[in-house]
Amino acid sequence: MEKNHNNILPIGVFDSGIGGLSVLKQLVRFLPQENYIYLGDTARVPYGNKSPEIVRQYAAECTDFLVSKQVKLVIAACNTVSSVALDVVSNHAGNIPVISMIEPASSAALRESSNARIGIIGTRATISSKAYENEITKLSGNKNLKVFSKPCPLFVPIVEEGMMKHPSTKLIAIDYLRDMIDAHVDTLVLGCTHYPLLSQLLQEIMPEVTLIDSGEHASVTALRILAEARQLQEQRKEFIEKPNVKFYVTDLPVNFAEQANMFLGFESEKPELISL
Amino acid sequence: MEKNHNNILPIGVFDSGIGGLSVLKQLVRFLPQENYIYLGDTARVPYGNKSPEIVRQYAAECTDFLVSKQVKLVIAACNTVSSVALDVVSNHAGNIPVISMIEPASSAALRESSNARIGIIGTRATISSKAYENEITKLSGNKNLKVFSKPCPLFVPIVEEGMMKHPSTKLIAIDYLRDMIDAHVDTLVLGCTHYPLLSQLLQEIMPEVTLIDSGEHASVTALRILAEARQLQEQRKEFIEKPNVKFYVTDLPVNFAEQANMFLGFESEKPELISL
Repeated sequence: MEKNHNNILPIGVFDSGIGGLSVLKQLVRFLPQENYIYLGDTARVPYGNKSPEIVRQYAAECTDFLVSKQVKLVIAACNTVSSVALDVVSNHAGNIPVISMIEPASSAALRESSNARIGIIGTRATISSKAYENEITKLSGNKNLKVFSKPCPLFVPIVEEGMMKHPSTKLIAIDYLRDMIDAHVDTLVLGCTHYPLLSQLLQEIMPEVTLIDSGEHASVTALRILAEARQLQEQRKEFIEKPNVKFYVTDLPVNFAEQANMFLGFESEKPELISL
Repeated sequence: MEKNHNNILPIGVFDSGIGGLSVLKQLVRFLPQENYIYLGDTARVPYGNKSPEIVRQYAAECTDFLVSKQVKLVIAACNTVSSVALDVVSNHAGNIPVISMIEPASSAALRESSNARIGIIGTRATISSKAYENEITKLSGNKNLKVFSKPCPLFVPIVEEGMMKHPSTKLIAIDYLRDMIDAHVDTLVLGCTHYPLLSQLLQEIMPEVTLIDSGEHASVTALRILAEARQLQEQRKEFIEKPNVKFYVTDLPVNFAEQANMFLGFESEKPELISL
Protein backbone atom coordinates (compact mmCIF):
# COMPACT_ATOMS: atom_id res chain seq x y z
CA MET A 1 0.00 0.00 0.00
CA GLU A 2 1.22 3.48 -0.84
CA LYS A 3 2.73 5.56 1.94
CA ASN A 4 1.44 9.02 2.60
CA HIS A 5 4.09 11.76 2.61
CA ASN A 6 2.30 13.45 5.51
CA ASN A 7 3.51 10.90 8.04
CA ILE A 8 6.31 13.00 9.47
CA LEU A 9 4.13 16.09 9.92
CA PRO A 10 3.20 16.97 13.51
CA ILE A 11 -0.13 16.55 15.23
CA GLY A 12 -1.54 19.96 16.21
CA VAL A 13 -3.21 20.29 19.59
CA PHE A 14 -4.73 23.47 20.99
CA ASP A 15 -6.52 24.62 24.11
CA SER A 16 -7.44 27.85 25.84
CA GLY A 17 -4.52 27.29 28.20
CA ILE A 18 -2.75 24.45 29.88
CA GLY A 19 -5.74 22.12 30.43
CA GLY A 20 -5.22 20.57 27.01
CA LEU A 21 -1.93 19.19 28.32
CA SER A 22 -3.98 16.46 30.01
CA VAL A 23 -5.05 15.50 26.46
CA LEU A 24 -1.45 15.67 25.23
CA LYS A 25 -0.49 13.39 28.09
CA GLN A 26 -2.93 10.79 26.74
CA LEU A 27 -1.82 11.34 23.15
CA VAL A 28 1.82 10.60 23.91
CA ARG A 29 0.69 7.47 25.74
CA PHE A 30 -1.07 6.09 22.64
CA LEU A 31 1.10 7.76 20.00
CA PRO A 32 4.54 8.25 21.58
CA GLN A 33 6.41 8.30 18.27
CA GLU A 34 4.56 11.31 16.86
CA ASN A 35 5.73 14.92 16.70
CA TYR A 36 3.41 17.39 18.40
CA ILE A 37 2.68 21.09 18.30
CA TYR A 38 0.78 22.36 21.32
CA LEU A 39 -0.78 25.82 21.38
CA GLY A 40 -2.18 27.26 24.62
CA ASP A 41 -4.01 30.58 24.31
CA THR A 42 -2.88 31.57 27.82
CA ALA A 43 -3.32 35.31 27.13
CA ARG A 44 -7.10 34.87 26.93
CA VAL A 45 -7.67 31.82 29.11
CA PRO A 46 -10.22 30.65 30.28
CA TYR A 47 -12.76 30.11 27.51
CA GLY A 48 -15.23 28.17 29.67
CA ASN A 49 -17.18 31.10 31.06
CA LYS A 50 -17.11 33.24 27.93
CA SER A 51 -19.72 33.59 25.17
CA PRO A 52 -19.90 31.15 22.23
CA GLU A 53 -19.22 34.09 19.86
CA ILE A 54 -15.87 35.00 21.42
CA VAL A 55 -14.84 31.33 21.81
CA ARG A 56 -15.53 30.81 18.09
CA GLN A 57 -13.33 33.77 17.19
CA TYR A 58 -10.48 32.50 19.38
CA ALA A 59 -10.85 28.93 18.10
CA ALA A 60 -10.57 30.15 14.51
CA GLU A 61 -7.35 31.99 15.33
CA CYS A 62 -5.87 28.96 17.12
CA THR A 63 -6.75 26.69 14.19
CA ASP A 64 -5.22 29.10 11.66
CA PHE A 65 -2.00 29.03 13.67
CA LEU A 66 -1.82 25.22 13.67
CA VAL A 67 -2.66 25.09 9.96
CA SER A 68 0.21 27.53 9.29
CA LYS A 69 2.50 25.00 11.02
CA GLN A 70 1.45 22.27 8.54
CA VAL A 71 -0.04 19.78 10.96
CA LYS A 72 -1.56 16.52 9.73
CA LEU A 73 -4.32 16.45 12.35
CA VAL A 74 -5.96 19.12 14.50
CA ILE A 75 -7.09 18.19 18.01
CA ALA A 76 -9.40 20.65 19.72
CA ALA A 77 -8.14 19.71 23.19
CA CYS A 78 -10.69 21.95 24.87
CA ASN A 79 -14.20 20.81 25.63
CA THR A 80 -15.53 24.36 25.41
CA VAL A 81 -14.16 24.79 21.88
CA SER A 82 -15.37 21.30 20.95
CA SER A 83 -18.83 22.19 22.25
CA VAL A 84 -19.42 25.59 20.68
CA ALA A 85 -16.90 26.00 17.83
CA LEU A 86 -16.24 22.64 16.19
CA ASP A 87 -17.68 23.79 12.84
CA VAL A 88 -15.37 26.83 12.90
CA VAL A 89 -12.34 24.65 13.63
CA SER A 90 -13.28 22.26 10.80
CA ASN A 91 -13.82 25.11 8.34
CA HIS A 92 -10.49 26.69 9.18
CA ALA A 93 -8.70 23.32 9.11
CA GLY A 94 -9.80 22.75 5.50
CA ASN A 95 -8.67 19.26 4.43
CA ILE A 96 -6.93 18.49 7.71
CA PRO A 97 -8.99 16.12 9.87
CA VAL A 98 -10.22 17.50 13.21
CA ILE A 99 -10.85 15.58 16.42
CA SER A 100 -13.10 17.05 19.08
CA MET A 101 -13.47 16.01 22.69
CA ILE A 102 -17.20 15.37 22.36
CA GLU A 103 -17.74 12.44 20.03
CA PRO A 104 -15.08 10.05 21.41
CA ALA A 105 -16.15 10.59 25.03
CA SER A 106 -19.84 10.30 24.14
CA SER A 107 -19.35 6.92 22.43
CA ALA A 108 -17.25 5.73 25.35
CA ALA A 109 -19.91 6.77 27.86
CA LEU A 110 -22.59 4.87 25.97
CA ARG A 111 -20.37 1.77 25.83
CA GLU A 112 -19.60 1.96 29.55
CA SER A 113 -23.05 2.69 30.91
CA SER A 114 -25.15 -0.28 32.04
CA ASN A 115 -28.17 1.64 33.27
CA ALA A 116 -28.36 4.29 30.54
CA ARG A 117 -27.98 7.07 33.10
CA ILE A 118 -25.01 9.22 32.12
CA GLY A 119 -23.66 12.32 33.84
CA ILE A 120 -21.77 15.15 32.17
CA ILE A 121 -19.71 17.74 34.03
CA GLY A 122 -17.97 20.67 32.36
CA THR A 123 -17.59 24.43 32.13
CA ARG A 124 -20.63 26.71 31.90
CA ALA A 125 -20.12 27.15 28.15
CA THR A 126 -19.82 23.39 27.54
CA ILE A 127 -22.89 22.51 29.60
CA SER A 128 -25.02 25.38 28.20
CA SER A 129 -24.23 24.25 24.66
CA LYS A 130 -25.77 20.79 25.31
CA ALA A 131 -23.11 19.42 22.91
CA TYR A 132 -22.57 16.24 24.95
CA GLU A 133 -26.28 15.69 25.57
CA ASN A 134 -27.06 16.06 21.88
CA GLU A 135 -24.19 13.81 20.77
CA ILE A 136 -25.03 11.07 23.27
CA THR A 137 -28.71 11.18 22.37
CA LYS A 138 -27.84 11.06 18.65
CA LEU A 139 -25.49 8.07 19.07
CA SER A 140 -27.83 6.08 21.31
CA GLY A 141 -30.80 4.08 20.14
CA ASN A 142 -32.06 3.73 23.72
CA LYS A 143 -35.26 5.66 24.36
CA ASN A 144 -34.82 5.26 28.11
CA LEU A 145 -31.44 7.01 28.06
CA LYS A 146 -31.16 9.84 30.59
CA VAL A 147 -28.40 12.43 30.55
CA PHE A 148 -27.72 14.65 33.60
CA SER A 149 -25.54 17.74 33.18
CA LYS A 150 -23.88 20.05 35.68
CA PRO A 151 -21.51 22.97 35.21
CA CYS A 152 -18.66 22.89 37.74
CA PRO A 153 -16.96 26.24 37.17
CA LEU A 154 -14.79 26.20 40.31
CA PHE A 155 -13.03 22.96 39.33
CA VAL A 156 -10.76 24.74 36.82
CA PRO A 157 -9.28 27.29 39.27
CA ILE A 158 -9.09 24.62 41.99
CA VAL A 159 -7.01 22.38 39.73
CA GLU A 160 -4.86 25.28 38.54
CA GLU A 161 -4.12 26.07 42.19
CA GLY A 162 -3.19 22.44 42.81
CA MET A 163 -5.87 22.27 45.53
CA MET A 164 -7.18 18.85 44.50
CA LYS A 165 -6.72 17.49 48.02
CA HIS A 166 -7.84 20.57 49.98
CA PRO A 167 -10.79 19.77 52.30
CA SER A 168 -12.86 22.54 50.70
CA THR A 169 -12.62 20.84 47.32
CA LYS A 170 -14.53 17.80 48.54
CA LEU A 171 -17.32 20.02 49.90
CA ILE A 172 -17.59 21.81 46.56
CA ALA A 173 -17.47 18.55 44.59
CA ILE A 174 -20.20 16.97 46.72
CA ASP A 175 -22.39 20.02 46.09
CA TYR A 176 -21.79 19.84 42.35
CA LEU A 177 -22.39 16.07 42.15
CA ARG A 178 -25.35 15.77 44.52
CA ASP A 179 -27.97 15.60 41.75
CA MET A 180 -25.89 13.03 39.80
CA ILE A 181 -25.59 10.83 42.87
CA ASP A 182 -29.33 11.06 43.53
CA ALA A 183 -30.01 10.25 39.87
CA HIS A 184 -27.88 7.06 40.13
CA VAL A 185 -25.72 7.79 37.08
CA ASP A 186 -23.27 4.92 36.51
CA THR A 187 -21.01 6.80 34.08
CA LEU A 188 -19.63 10.32 34.40
CA VAL A 189 -18.05 12.19 31.50
CA LEU A 190 -15.24 14.51 32.61
CA GLY A 191 -16.16 17.12 30.03
CA CYS A 192 -13.27 19.48 30.75
CA THR A 193 -9.56 18.80 30.33
CA HIS A 194 -8.86 19.94 33.89
CA TYR A 195 -11.10 17.37 35.50
CA PRO A 196 -8.96 14.23 35.09
CA LEU A 197 -6.74 15.75 37.80
CA LEU A 198 -9.74 15.44 40.13
CA SER A 199 -10.39 11.78 39.21
CA GLN A 200 -9.30 10.43 42.57
CA LEU A 201 -11.64 12.71 44.52
CA LEU A 202 -14.56 12.20 42.13
CA GLN A 203 -14.11 8.44 42.34
CA GLU A 204 -14.04 8.69 46.13
CA ILE A 205 -17.35 10.59 46.10
CA MET A 206 -18.91 8.30 43.47
CA PRO A 207 -17.12 4.96 43.94
CA GLU A 208 -19.42 2.90 41.67
CA VAL A 209 -19.24 5.27 38.74
CA THR A 210 -17.09 4.87 35.61
CA LEU A 211 -15.24 8.10 34.83
CA ILE A 212 -14.74 8.99 31.18
CA ASP A 213 -11.59 10.99 30.39
CA SER A 214 -12.34 12.86 27.15
CA GLY A 215 -8.64 13.19 26.33
CA GLU A 216 -8.06 9.45 26.55
CA HIS A 217 -10.85 8.64 24.13
CA ALA A 218 -9.89 11.44 21.75
CA SER A 219 -6.38 9.95 21.67
CA VAL A 220 -7.72 6.54 20.69
CA THR A 221 -9.68 8.23 17.90
CA ALA A 222 -6.50 10.02 16.77
CA LEU A 223 -4.71 6.67 16.58
CA ARG A 224 -7.52 5.15 14.52
CA ILE A 225 -7.80 8.10 12.09
CA LEU A 226 -4.05 8.28 11.46
CA ALA A 227 -3.79 4.50 11.09
CA GLU A 228 -6.66 4.37 8.60
CA ALA A 229 -5.12 7.20 6.58
CA ARG A 230 -1.72 5.43 6.83
CA GLN A 231 -0.32 8.64 8.29
CA LEU A 232 1.22 7.26 11.46
CA GLN A 233 4.77 8.38 12.15
CA GLU A 234 6.66 5.09 11.97
CA GLN A 235 10.22 6.16 11.40
CA ARG A 236 11.24 6.22 15.04
CA LYS A 237 10.76 2.71 16.32
CA GLU A 238 13.18 3.02 19.22
CA PHE A 239 12.12 3.61 22.80
CA ILE A 240 10.95 7.23 23.15
CA GLU A 241 12.44 8.76 26.25
CA LYS A 242 10.74 12.12 25.93
CA PRO A 243 7.89 13.01 23.58
CA ASN A 244 8.71 15.44 20.81
CA VAL A 245 6.52 18.46 21.59
CA LYS A 246 6.92 22.04 20.43
CA PHE A 247 5.01 24.42 22.72
CA TYR A 248 3.51 27.78 21.85
CA VAL A 249 1.68 30.09 24.26
CA THR A 250 0.17 33.56 23.93
CA ASP A 251 1.25 34.51 27.46
CA LEU A 252 3.84 33.14 29.83
CA PRO A 253 2.71 33.62 33.44
CA VAL A 254 5.20 33.14 36.27
CA ASN A 255 4.00 29.72 37.41
CA PHE A 256 3.52 28.26 33.91
CA ALA A 257 6.18 25.53 34.07
CA GLU A 258 4.93 24.23 37.41
CA GLN A 259 1.32 24.06 36.21
CA ALA A 260 2.26 22.54 32.85
CA ASN A 261 4.23 19.75 34.51
CA MET A 262 1.29 19.01 36.81
CA PHE A 263 -0.97 18.38 33.79
CA LEU A 264 1.59 16.67 31.63
CA GLY A 265 3.31 14.45 34.16
CA PHE A 266 6.71 15.24 32.64
CA GLU A 267 8.80 18.35 32.39
CA SER A 268 7.85 20.39 29.36
CA GLU A 269 10.14 22.37 27.10
CA LYS A 270 10.10 26.14 27.59
CA PRO A 271 7.30 27.39 25.34
CA GLU A 272 7.65 29.96 22.60
CA LEU A 273 5.63 33.15 23.09
CA ILE A 274 3.46 34.15 20.11
CA SER A 275 0.61 36.53 19.27
CA LEU A 276 -2.54 35.31 17.56
CA MET B 1 -13.17 81.29 39.90
CA GLU B 2 -13.22 80.19 36.28
CA LYS B 3 -15.17 77.07 35.42
CA ASN B 4 -13.53 74.26 33.52
CA HIS B 5 -15.37 73.21 30.36
CA ASN B 6 -14.48 69.60 31.12
CA ASN B 7 -17.03 69.33 33.92
CA ILE B 8 -19.68 67.53 31.89
CA LEU B 9 -17.26 64.95 30.49
CA PRO B 10 -17.60 61.43 31.87
CA ILE B 11 -15.29 59.65 34.30
CA GLY B 12 -13.72 56.61 32.62
CA VAL B 13 -13.40 53.41 34.63
CA PHE B 14 -11.90 50.16 33.38
CA ASP B 15 -11.23 46.69 34.66
CA SER B 16 -10.38 43.25 33.29
CA GLY B 17 -14.03 42.30 33.77
CA ILE B 18 -16.84 42.96 36.19
CA GLY B 19 -14.78 43.29 39.40
CA GLY B 20 -14.30 47.00 38.77
CA LEU B 21 -18.04 47.42 39.25
CA SER B 22 -17.36 47.27 43.00
CA VAL B 23 -15.27 50.42 42.45
CA LEU B 24 -18.01 52.00 40.34
CA LYS B 25 -20.42 51.27 43.18
CA GLN B 26 -18.23 53.36 45.51
CA LEU B 27 -17.77 56.09 42.90
CA VAL B 28 -21.52 56.64 42.49
CA ARG B 29 -21.80 56.78 46.28
CA PHE B 30 -19.33 59.68 46.51
CA LEU B 31 -19.97 61.23 43.10
CA PRO B 32 -23.57 60.39 42.19
CA GLN B 33 -24.02 63.35 39.83
CA GLU B 34 -21.20 62.34 37.46
CA ASN B 35 -21.49 60.61 34.10
CA TYR B 36 -19.51 57.37 33.86
CA ILE B 37 -18.07 55.16 31.16
CA TYR B 38 -17.23 51.65 32.34
CA LEU B 39 -15.15 49.28 30.22
CA GLY B 40 -14.81 45.60 31.18
CA ASP B 41 -12.36 43.54 29.10
CA THR B 42 -14.51 40.45 29.59
CA ALA B 43 -13.11 38.73 26.48
CA ARG B 44 -9.71 38.38 28.15
CA VAL B 45 -10.63 38.31 31.85
CA PRO B 46 -8.98 37.56 34.28
CA TYR B 47 -5.74 39.58 34.31
CA GLY B 48 -4.71 38.50 37.83
CA ASN B 49 -2.87 35.32 36.92
CA LYS B 50 -1.33 36.57 33.66
CA SER B 51 2.13 38.01 33.04
CA PRO B 52 2.90 41.71 33.62
CA GLU B 53 3.75 42.01 29.90
CA ILE B 54 0.32 40.92 28.67
CA VAL B 55 -1.49 42.94 31.37
CA ARG B 56 0.43 46.04 30.24
CA GLN B 57 -0.64 45.47 26.64
CA TYR B 58 -4.29 45.04 27.63
CA ALA B 59 -4.20 48.05 29.98
CA ALA B 60 -2.85 50.23 27.15
CA GLU B 61 -5.71 49.16 24.89
CA CYS B 62 -8.32 49.80 27.59
CA THR B 63 -6.88 53.26 28.29
CA ASP B 64 -6.83 54.15 24.59
CA PHE B 65 -10.51 53.26 24.39
CA LEU B 66 -11.44 55.51 27.34
CA VAL B 67 -9.33 58.35 25.95
CA SER B 68 -11.17 58.03 22.63
CA LYS B 69 -14.40 58.59 24.60
CA GLN B 70 -13.06 61.91 25.95
CA VAL B 71 -13.14 61.16 29.65
CA LYS B 72 -11.95 63.74 32.19
CA LEU B 73 -10.46 61.16 34.55
CA VAL B 74 -9.23 57.56 34.12
CA ILE B 75 -9.72 55.12 36.97
CA ALA B 76 -7.76 51.88 36.74
CA ALA B 77 -10.38 49.94 38.68
CA CYS B 78 -8.27 46.81 38.70
CA ASN B 79 -5.60 46.18 41.29
CA THR B 80 -3.60 44.03 38.88
CA VAL B 81 -3.44 46.83 36.31
CA SER B 82 -2.70 49.35 39.07
CA SER B 83 0.14 47.12 40.29
CA VAL B 84 1.93 46.26 37.07
CA ALA B 85 0.80 48.77 34.43
CA LEU B 86 0.13 52.15 36.02
CA ASP B 87 2.93 53.84 34.03
CA VAL B 88 1.43 52.48 30.79
CA VAL B 89 -2.02 53.78 31.73
CA SER B 90 -0.59 57.21 32.59
CA ASN B 91 1.40 57.39 29.35
CA HIS B 92 -1.62 56.47 27.26
CA ALA B 93 -3.89 58.84 29.22
CA GLY B 94 -1.67 61.80 28.32
CA ASN B 95 -2.98 64.91 30.12
CA ILE B 96 -5.93 63.11 31.68
CA PRO B 97 -5.36 62.38 35.37
CA VAL B 98 -5.22 58.70 36.37
CA ILE B 99 -6.24 57.13 39.68
CA SER B 100 -4.90 53.74 40.65
CA MET B 101 -6.12 51.41 43.36
CA ILE B 102 -2.75 51.32 45.13
CA GLU B 103 -1.97 54.79 46.52
CA PRO B 104 -5.38 55.60 48.07
CA ALA B 105 -5.67 52.20 49.79
CA SER B 106 -2.04 52.35 50.97
CA SER B 107 -2.54 55.75 52.63
CA ALA B 108 -5.78 54.55 54.19
CA ALA B 109 -4.10 51.43 55.58
CA LEU B 110 -1.35 53.51 57.18
CA ARG B 111 -3.94 55.87 58.72
CA GLU B 112 -5.99 52.97 60.10
CA SER B 113 -3.22 50.78 61.49
CA SER B 114 -2.35 51.21 65.16
CA ASN B 115 0.31 48.53 65.40
CA ALA B 116 2.05 49.11 62.04
CA ARG B 117 1.31 45.53 60.95
CA ILE B 118 -0.58 45.65 57.67
CA GLY B 119 -1.81 42.75 55.56
CA ILE B 120 -2.34 42.80 51.78
CA ILE B 121 -4.37 40.23 49.87
CA GLY B 122 -4.73 40.19 46.08
CA THR B 123 -4.23 38.27 42.87
CA ARG B 124 -0.96 36.51 42.11
CA ALA B 125 0.08 39.32 39.74
CA THR B 126 -0.71 42.05 42.29
CA ILE B 127 1.12 40.34 45.15
CA SER B 128 4.15 39.34 43.00
CA SER B 129 4.52 42.95 41.87
CA LYS B 130 4.98 44.15 45.50
CA ALA B 131 3.21 47.36 44.42
CA TYR B 132 1.31 47.71 47.72
CA GLU B 133 4.33 46.80 49.85
CA ASN B 134 6.49 49.35 48.06
CA GLU B 135 3.86 52.09 48.21
CA ILE B 136 3.13 51.56 51.91
CA THR B 137 6.83 51.48 52.77
CA LYS B 138 7.40 54.64 50.72
CA LEU B 139 4.52 56.53 52.41
CA SER B 140 5.38 55.42 55.94
CA GLY B 141 8.10 56.92 58.08
CA ASN B 142 7.83 54.07 60.56
CA LYS B 143 10.87 51.83 60.56
CA ASN B 144 9.01 49.17 62.54
CA LEU B 145 6.31 48.87 59.87
CA LYS B 146 5.67 45.26 58.76
CA VAL B 147 3.71 44.34 55.64
CA PHE B 148 2.40 40.80 55.13
CA SER B 149 1.22 39.76 51.65
CA LYS B 150 -0.75 36.76 50.43
CA PRO B 151 -2.12 35.91 47.00
CA CYS B 152 -5.68 34.52 47.22
CA PRO B 153 -6.32 33.36 43.66
CA LEU B 154 -9.48 31.34 44.40
CA PHE B 155 -11.36 34.35 45.81
CA VAL B 156 -12.11 35.73 42.33
CA PRO B 157 -13.85 32.63 40.95
CA ILE B 158 -15.58 32.06 44.31
CA VAL B 159 -17.08 35.56 44.20
CA GLU B 160 -17.99 35.24 40.53
CA GLU B 161 -19.87 32.05 41.38
CA GLY B 162 -21.69 33.85 44.20
CA MET B 163 -20.30 31.28 46.67
CA MET B 164 -19.41 33.81 49.36
CA LYS B 165 -21.42 31.92 51.97
CA HIS B 166 -20.50 28.37 50.91
CA PRO B 167 -18.88 26.42 53.79
CA SER B 168 -15.85 25.65 51.59
CA THR B 169 -15.14 29.36 51.21
CA LYS B 170 -14.49 29.77 54.92
CA LEU B 171 -12.02 26.86 54.87
CA ILE B 172 -10.16 28.40 51.95
CA ALA B 173 -10.18 31.87 53.51
CA ILE B 174 -8.84 30.57 56.82
CA ASP B 175 -6.02 28.86 54.94
CA TYR B 176 -5.17 32.03 53.03
CA LEU B 177 -5.32 34.25 56.14
CA ARG B 178 -3.62 31.98 58.66
CA ASP B 179 -0.23 33.75 58.44
CA MET B 180 -1.88 37.19 58.73
CA ILE B 181 -3.75 36.11 61.85
CA ASP B 182 -0.57 34.70 63.39
CA ALA B 183 1.24 37.95 62.52
CA HIS B 184 -1.44 40.02 64.34
CA VAL B 185 -2.09 42.42 61.49
CA ASP B 186 -4.66 45.03 62.53
CA THR B 187 -5.42 46.30 59.01
CA LEU B 188 -6.08 44.26 55.88
CA VAL B 189 -6.05 45.79 52.38
CA LEU B 190 -8.54 44.11 50.04
CA GLY B 191 -6.21 44.44 47.07
CA CYS B 192 -8.63 43.09 44.48
CA THR B 193 -11.95 44.56 43.41
CA HIS B 194 -13.70 41.22 43.98
CA TYR B 195 -12.79 41.00 47.64
CA PRO B 196 -15.20 43.58 49.11
CA LEU B 197 -17.91 40.99 48.39
CA LEU B 198 -16.14 38.74 50.91
CA SER B 199 -15.94 41.45 53.59
CA GLN B 200 -18.47 39.81 55.87
CA LEU B 201 -16.60 36.49 55.90
CA LEU B 202 -13.17 38.09 56.25
CA GLN B 203 -14.42 40.21 59.15
CA GLU B 204 -15.87 37.07 60.77
CA ILE B 205 -12.47 35.33 60.51
CA MET B 206 -10.53 38.44 61.62
CA PRO B 207 -13.01 40.36 63.80
CA GLU B 208 -10.50 42.88 65.19
CA VAL B 209 -9.07 43.85 61.82
CA THR B 210 -9.94 46.98 59.80
CA LEU B 211 -10.66 46.08 56.17
CA ILE B 212 -9.56 48.57 53.51
CA ASP B 213 -11.72 48.64 50.36
CA SER B 214 -9.44 49.96 47.61
CA GLY B 215 -12.44 51.15 45.55
CA GLU B 216 -13.79 53.27 48.39
CA HIS B 217 -10.52 55.11 48.92
CA ALA B 218 -9.93 55.54 45.17
CA SER B 219 -13.37 57.17 44.99
CA VAL B 220 -12.49 59.65 47.70
CA THR B 221 -9.33 60.48 45.76
CA ALA B 222 -11.41 60.96 42.60
CA LEU B 223 -13.65 63.42 44.47
CA ARG B 224 -10.65 65.36 45.72
CA ILE B 225 -8.90 65.52 42.33
CA LEU B 226 -12.00 66.66 40.47
CA ALA B 227 -12.88 69.19 43.17
CA GLU B 228 -9.37 70.68 43.15
CA ALA B 229 -9.44 70.94 39.35
CA ARG B 230 -12.96 72.43 39.60
CA GLN B 231 -14.14 69.67 37.24
CA LEU B 232 -16.99 68.29 39.30
CA GLN B 233 -20.21 67.81 37.41
CA GLU B 234 -22.52 70.20 39.21
CA GLN B 235 -25.31 70.77 36.76
CA ARG B 236 -27.61 68.08 38.10
CA LYS B 237 -28.34 69.00 41.69
CA GLU B 238 -31.56 66.98 41.95
CA PHE B 239 -31.79 63.58 43.59
CA ILE B 240 -30.14 61.00 41.32
CA GLU B 241 -32.34 57.97 41.06
CA LYS B 242 -30.02 55.94 38.89
CA PRO B 243 -26.39 56.71 38.13
CA ASN B 244 -25.61 57.64 34.55
CA VAL B 245 -23.31 54.83 33.40
CA LYS B 246 -22.51 53.76 29.84
CA PHE B 247 -21.17 50.18 29.80
CA TYR B 248 -18.81 48.63 27.29
CA VAL B 249 -17.60 45.03 27.32
CA THR B 250 -15.42 42.96 25.00
CA ASP B 251 -17.54 39.84 25.56
CA LEU B 252 -21.05 39.29 26.81
CA PRO B 253 -21.27 35.95 28.61
CA VAL B 254 -24.67 34.46 29.44
CA ASN B 255 -24.69 35.32 33.15
CA PHE B 256 -23.23 38.81 32.77
CA ALA B 257 -26.24 40.82 34.00
CA GLU B 258 -26.63 38.68 37.11
CA GLN B 259 -22.95 39.01 38.03
CA ALA B 260 -22.84 42.73 37.24
CA ASN B 261 -25.82 43.43 39.51
CA MET B 262 -24.17 41.46 42.31
CA PHE B 263 -21.11 43.76 42.19
CA LEU B 264 -22.96 46.97 41.52
CA GLY B 265 -25.93 46.60 43.85
CA PHE B 266 -28.27 48.01 41.22
CA GLU B 267 -29.46 46.82 37.85
CA SER B 268 -27.04 47.87 35.13
CA GLU B 269 -27.87 48.96 31.60
CA LYS B 270 -27.25 46.37 28.90
CA PRO B 271 -23.61 46.86 27.88
CA GLU B 272 -22.41 47.58 24.38
CA LEU B 273 -20.12 44.95 22.87
CA ILE B 274 -16.85 46.29 21.45
CA SER B 275 -13.45 44.99 20.23
CA LEU B 276 -10.20 46.44 21.53
